[in-house]
Amino acid sequence: MSIKEWIIPQDKIFFDLFERLSETVVKGSNELVLLLDDYKDIKPKIQKIKDIEHEGDEIAHAIYEQLNVNFITPFEPQEISRLASALDDVLDFIDGTTRRMEHYGITETDVYMHELAQLIQLSAVELAEAVKHIRSIKDPRLIEDRCIEVNRLENVADEVLTQAITALFTTSDAMNIIKCKDVYDRLELATDKCEDAANVLSNIAIKHS
Amino acid sequence: MSIKEWIIPQDKIFFDLFERLSETVVKGSNELVLLLDDYKDIKPKIQKIKDIEHEGDEIAHAIYEQLNVNFITPFEPQEISRLASALDDVLDFIDGTTRRMEHYGITETDVYMHELAQLIQLSAVELAEAVKHIRSIKDPRLIEDRCIEVNRLENVADEVLTQAITALFTTSDAMNIIKCKDVYDRLELATDKCEDAANVLSNIAIKHS
Amino acid sequence: MSIKEWIIPQDKIFFDLFERLSETVVKGSNELVLLLDDYKDIKPKIQKIKDIEHEGDEIAHAIYEQLNVNFITPFEPQEISRLASALDDVLDFIDGTTRRMEHYGITETDVYMHELAQLIQLSAVELAEAVKHIRSIKDPRLIEDRCIEVNRLENVADEVLTQAITALFTTSDAMNIIKCKDVYDRLELATDKCEDAANVLSNIAIKHS
Repeated sequence: MSIKEWIIPQDKIFFDLFERLSETVVKGSNELVLLLDDYKDIKPKIQKIKDIEHEGDEIAHAIYEQLNVNFITPFEPQEISRLASALDDVLDFIDGTTRRMEHYGITETDVYMHELAQLIQLSAVELAEAVKHIRSIKDPRLIEDRCIEVNRLENVADEVLTQAITALFTTSDAMNIIKCKDVYDRLELATDKCEDAANVLSNIAIKHS
Repeated sequence: MSIKEWIIPQDKIFFDLFERLSETVVKGSNELVLLLDDYKDIKPKIQKIKDIEHEGDEIAHAIYEQLNVNFITPFEPQEISRLASALDDVLDFIDGTTRRMEHYGITETDVYMHELAQLIQLSAVELAEAVKHIRSIKDPRLIEDRCIEVNRLENVADEVLTQAITALFTTSDAMNIIKCKDVYDRLELATDKCEDAANVLSNIAIKHS
Repeated sequence: MSIKEWIIPQDKIFFDLFERLSETVVKGSNELVLLLDDYKDIKPKIQKIKDIEHEGDEIAHAIYEQLNVNFITPFEPQEISRLASALDDVLDFIDGTTRRMEHYGITETDVYMHELAQLIQLSAVELAEAVKHIRSIKDPRLIEDRCIEVNRLENVADEVLTQAITALFTTSDAMNIIKCKDVYDRLELATDKCEDAANVLSNIAIKHS
């Protein structure tokens, strides 16, 4: 067995885990959009998102554990842990937002929440595609184009947040403002974390091309 | 003098500093529980917590300084700095919460604040025990069991926060909601930081066993 | 060409970029003070700050890119990326605060906002001076004195925040409290990020002296 063959299986573990993690983020963002599209009978839907977040946690944990035992990693350990934690954070913010919506007793959603959720979903799909391409980087543009798109989506999310906050503060129900401001901010933070993940992926593409 | 003897004293500095830091976190959490148990004449009690936080800052700073001058460290520099900053953050959140309680003019505490403070205290005691065992890792289970317990306590804190927020948003005093939401969130963040510290300790146990 | 000559140009890039970044932070803090001093016709002024923030983003991005391609760096990669991100964060908080002021429909400023803005400006000037001295560290005290001053300014900002929050919570307009609390907190976070930058600079001075 050549050294190369001996190394590859270890790399494979990381690629497999990152694909599973990014697909879990897609799954979580899909459930978020479904919840907001039909905001009724919310308890089981929010529980489903919580379960997906838990799944993501386990995969991220497996990645950290691999970092502890594997001395040969496909990328720098810091890149691996930053990517794992950014993807995990996206799920945390999705889960955190929906749980707060339940605890705040929010009974209906608005157009800004919908748009932010869709932007998270679009970003998650781009990230999952980019992650697929890091397994063997032949054409770094395939990764970089996805990352540029995630950055663009984050800018759109920022613009939606601006509109949402501006509209919210023309109203005068302090209770409602407290609730919605928190929900908007958390959703936008999810897109920030998508951007973080994209930045790591873009770095990986540049260095390993 | 053997190389080993020459190395040990440097290790000793880190272990000593981490024991002092984790005991300072225990001290801070004890004062937090005492303050909330008898929330009267609060100014000197909050000042005492501020002083303990300052003590923690100094110890954390000493750890970072040792990292700058010592090329041989018992664990990876990144683990050392993550552990120091997580423990320091626990004290920051304890201090920050009690100062905000003063500035917000909060005049009485509630059962959720008490429970969260007790969970911080229990976590701090577990962390201090785990830190004692990193000096010479004979049985990693002794560390890991403590870390598992800190993770469990963080889940309980999350559940208490859920109950606290849900109860709070059934009330209608916006001013009180702003204040209490902030206090609950900060207390829960302290338990998150305990979990961070536990995760580093658990990693150390796995790698150095 | 000696190895030393070959190395220096790479170092030069980092020093040039950090000087540009820290001067951009000074520029952003100047505009913040100007905005708060004459809080009228705010849209173009806030746009100007947004443009400066964007400039800072580009410089920080150039620093990260240099880290990816340069194997020889004047300081440790982690120090470089922590310093770049702390300086970038100062601009983010300046920009974020002023945009929120606009979106919240805030129509007038107060003495606390003024004081916090001035403390950010003073800190930015100190940081820019410290950054100038890392190019060739002859006397580390020249850097350390600036960093000590930034730490002092952060403590003053903390005190101003205490007064601001305490005064705010003696009022009873929940809407106004939500808005101002957020603005105060964001301004104070800018001074925290100045302190972060100062701590990295201070570490660099100690190690490379």
